[in-house]
Amino acid sequence: MECIIIDKRIDYDGSQISSLWAYNMADVQADSIIGFRGACDVRIEHMIDLEDKKQGDIIFSTDMLHFVIEHFDSTDLKLVYARQRLFTSIVREVLSLRYSDITRNGDDLFIGEKKLTISIASTSAVSQKIHFGINVFHDYYGSLEDLGIQGDEVAVVLQEIAEAYVREFDDIEKDLRKSRPLDVI
Amino acid sequence: MECIIIDKRIDYDGSQISSLWAYNMADVQADSIIGFRGACDVRIEHMIDLEDKKQGDIIFSTDMLHFVIEHFDSTDLKLVYARQRLFTSIVREVLSLRYSDITRNGDDLFIGEKKLTISIASTSAVSQKIHFGINVFHDYYGSLEDLGIQGDEVAVVLQEIAEAYVREFDDIEKDLRKSRPLDVI
Amino acid sequence: MECIIIDKRIDYDGSQISSLWAYNMADVQADSIIGFRGACDVRIEHMIDLEDKKQGDIIFSTDMLHFVIEHFDSTDLKLVYARQRLFTSIVREVLSLRYSDITRNGDDLFIGEKKLTISIASTSAVSQKIHFGINVFHDYYGSLEDLGIQGDEVAVVLQEIAEAYVREFDDIEKDLRKSRPLDVI
Amino acid sequence: MECIIIDKRIDYDGSQISSLWAYNMADVQADSIIGFRGACDVRIEHMIDLEDKKQGDIIFSTDMLHFVIEHFDSTDLKLVYARQRLFTSIVREVLSLRYSDITRNGDDLFIGEKKLTISIASTSAVSQKIHFGINVFHDYYGSLEDLGIQGDEVAVVLQEIAEAYVREFDDIEKDLRKSRPLDVI
Amino acid sequence: MECIIIDKRIDYDGSQISSLWAYNMADVQADSIIGFRGACDVRIEHMIDLEDKKQGDIIFSTDMLHFVIEHFDSTDLKLVYARQRLFTSIVREVLSLRYSDITRNGDDLFIGEKKLTISIASTSAVSQKIHFGINVFHDYYGSLEDLGIQGDEVAVVLQEIAEAYVREFDDIEKDLRKSRPLDVI
Amino acid sequence: MECIIIDKRIDYDGSQISSLWAYNMADVQADSIIGFRGACDVRIEHMIDLEDKKQGDIIFSTDMLHFVIEHFDSTDLKLVYARQRLFTSIVREVLSLRYSDITRNGDDLFIGEKKLTISIASTSAVSQKIHFGINVFHDYYGSLEDLGIQGDEVAVVLQEIAEAYVREFDDIEKDLRKSRPLDVI
Repeated sequence: MECIIIDKRIDYDGSQISSLWAYNMADVQADSIIGFRGACDVRIEHMIDLEDKKQGDIIFSTDMLHFVIEHFDSTDLKLVYARQRLFTSIVREVLSLRYSDITRNGDDLFIGEKKLTISIASTSAVSQKIHFGINVFHDYYGSLEDLGIQGDEVAVVLQEIAEAYVREFDDIEKDLRKSRPLDVI
Repeated sequence: MECIIIDKRIDYDGSQISSLWAYNMADVQADSIIGFRGACDVRIEHMIDLEDKKQGDIIFSTDMLHFVIEHFDSTDLKLVYARQRLFTSIVREVLSLRYSDITRNGDDLFIGEKKLTISIASTSAVSQKIHFGINVFHDYYGSLEDLGIQGDEVAVVLQEIAEAYVREFDDIEKDLRKSRPLDVI
Repeated sequence: MECIIIDKRIDYDGSQISSLWAYNMADVQADSIIGFRGACDVRIEHMIDLEDKKQGDIIFSTDMLHFVIEHFDSTDLKLVYARQRLFTSIVREVLSLRYSDITRNGDDLFIGEKKLTISIASTSAVSQKIHFGINVFHDYYGSLEDLGIQGDEVAVVLQEIAEAYVREFDDIEKDLRKSRPLDVI
Repeated sequence: MECIIIDKRIDYDGSQISSLWAYNMADVQADSIIGFRGACDVRIEHMIDLEDKKQGDIIFSTDMLHFVIEHFDSTDLKLVYARQRLFTSIVREVLSLRYSDITRNGDDLFIGEKKLTISIASTSAVSQKIHFGINVFHDYYGSLEDLGIQGDEVAVVLQEIAEAYVREFDDIEKDLRKSRPLDVI
Repeated sequence: MECIIIDKRIDYDGSQISSLWAYNMADVQADSIIGFRGACDVRIEHMIDLEDKKQGDIIFSTDMLHFVIEHFDSTDLKLVYARQRLFTSIVREVLSLRYSDITRNGDDLFIGEKKLTISIASTSAVSQKIHFGINVFHDYYGSLEDLGIQGDEVAVVLQEIAEAYVREFDDIEKDLRKSRPLDVI
Repeated sequence: MECIIIDKRIDYDGSQISSLWAYNMADVQADSIIGFRGACDVRIEHMIDLEDKKQGDIIFSTDMLHFVIEHFDSTDLKLVYARQRLFTSIVREVLSLRYSDITRNGDDLFIGEKKLTISIASTSAVSQKIHFGINVFHDYYGSLEDLGIQGDEVAVVLQEIAEAYVREFDDIEKDLRKSRPLDVI
């Protein structure tokens, strides 16, 4: 799968979770993780999580790291959710190299009581997608700033996380190609 | 899914990775994680990882915590491997509450250079299974003892890990039931 | 899976067949069968069966028992149709305890020549759904009244059918977890 | 799918549940239901239901109607079990035309307290199969004789059941080709 | 699967690639290939290939043979694309009986440098579809006329191609019902 | 996917169709096509095609080009058969550059009445595989020699075919990542 880091600022408004955004935006014709930095302001019509939608949640942040993952190898909802949880763990692992007291609860990361991230996953008839956002700075919620990650380090973290997911994916694809089927009692 | 902790010692010889072992052993008719403690000595005919088999690897430990996971909801190899990686992350998270310098590389955990765990995942025509073993004590490899986890704490860790996986699974199953399908560009 | 019986009257207009209606209406985050009583008047834009749509069929009844089933474990069209037929058989079995001359033809039940029920099944990218409606009273078609089921008994039937489906589903889930794979000649 | 009724007696020993038995026996290259009459004596190595195997159950009858169903369109365990339940309902419907007090519990039919049938379903990597057997005569369990079905009527019932399943299958295949996908809330 | 050749002219505007067009147009309740002749002018809202859409491609031809294939047996994107490539090979084989210098590149056929065909494939939640068009006459692109196929021969080619695909499909369905599962090393 | 051409002679005895042969033989941890030259003498226990097995067919040739394809992205029988047919078409296309009168019938190629090739496809619980063999020389059946392909050209053909399949596969994987889902009528 391809790892693409976009230098210029992109604000996440929820349209990026649509299938085939990577192709439309950058002619990507592969499974991909795209990392970029920008504000977050999800319009109601792009809300995938109906809990947010029902509660009229405002998903808003002025400065976030965003990861948009797309896989075309399956449209299984269970698989994309397992991948989302695994991605959340990977983010935690990368951040924990800098700051040890981060906890994970499902697809959320916390610093103490403060929520640091947002995430959603779903499928269309052709692909599965994950969005994951990490506050760079936030007045109310947790942020990379709270972890002491600032300045150039922010871009380093963006790159490291995206690369770690690609490495994990490639490693899985190799591992599953050397295991024989199970015996049966 | 069911969480079953077995009090008596069971030695893992590789036969436990077979589909339907949980039913045969304990009449379990649900997806399950079964945790127990015992030696590990995998016979060549039960080796699922062909790399081990080719290299004539000895998978041997006198004292391990074992987790045997079985899901019947899918026989997708990609899904069982994503779940295996996620489980590995969960083990790391539980252990990290006691000892911070554990690193994960795919389905392996390390303390410094010393490998602490073994794992395999595969499918049959009816279920998917994961085995995960953690050395309690080991002369050569890493072990819980190296993390300062000994005595009654070993059983606590066994229980915590198994319960954390069940919680994660249940949480995923709930989350995927409130997300609408993706839009398409 | 959850069994939910709604006491207050809900008129079925076809919007209830949409994926995630159960979550939106009642925060259900599980596979579910929801039973309720109300009129039926399916708007053309909610018609799933294109035969009805083409023929400009009016799907109308002033008083029906409705069952809305949603499964998130698969989006396989063959599976939801097998489940729909099985559900139809279950309805027939419950009703036959009160009135013996009910016949089934696919997803339809009849009393003599008179059609007693309506049903549709389909999938989206995230779930599979079934709607099944039984006339409580009808001037032209068959109804529970014709079976001698009236008054409080109507609510009893609503509950019995919903519970029978949940029991069947749970029983299947258990059975498939104790069968080994087939041999091959 | 093909409906094949075999005139000569075949004793069911469990080998017939293997994938591709229909091809090996009769060059069938289609999904199929094969009906025949014969004794039943399942050898331990052909037992698919591990509950029977554990309990050392004897699956024995001197005279049974047998149905062996094979589908190659999917190897989904959930689908073959839904089909097995649906088949059980169909058997009940055909028999109920002759004798009204038959009850169904999962994949079993009963006359009063007496079990009338046996059934198993499972998958291999290439197909899904169902075996269903009905006692024609039995000293201890229920049988067609108890229903008053004897003589030439036995062959009629064999044929009717097999044909009813094919009709149901064809009807499902047609129905699922006229339903549009679900809307989503 | 059904093979339907339509005698009257139908212009292809992209709406025919929608799922269930065959049912809506001709009450087809089977997997099908529908062949017809007409102009081609795909409206932007019906463009499935985002490359065409991005480039504002005009997909226009005054006279084409069209094939619209629909399968309901799977919604796997990999399968519909393998079938599309196979169909393209079949078209090449039929045309090569008349004119030998046709080359295939993926889902495109060429006479020398001139592109002779257009094609697209995709899935919805209920079916998979392929459109394939061959220029009968064209000022700029390649056409059947360039191959010397004119007059009554055009209708013959339409019929031969559609029948060859049905034959291939039926042959595959039979072949996969006589192969046992693989051994494993 | 990887394309591997083996220089040394390997005789095909049917064991190479087993899942994971590529890993065992050459540590391949990717989808792969492996091309080599050698005799063909399939032992009865490795026969996948039950028609051959029933008829006691001898699958024997002293000199063949062999292609062994393995995909781990799916265990769908329909997909591996579509890929097998597509591969057969690709072989025909490559050979037709040298000799024009080759015909395809399903997974067989012919020169006039003489059969030039053999092929089989199937799945295990972990992968799908295809074997395809082309006679280099044969007393009775058709062979590359009959096409005028001899000497160094034989190795060129081996390479060209294997590379053409990889190119086709890669092309498909890219194409399916730029197509939006279908509309629905």
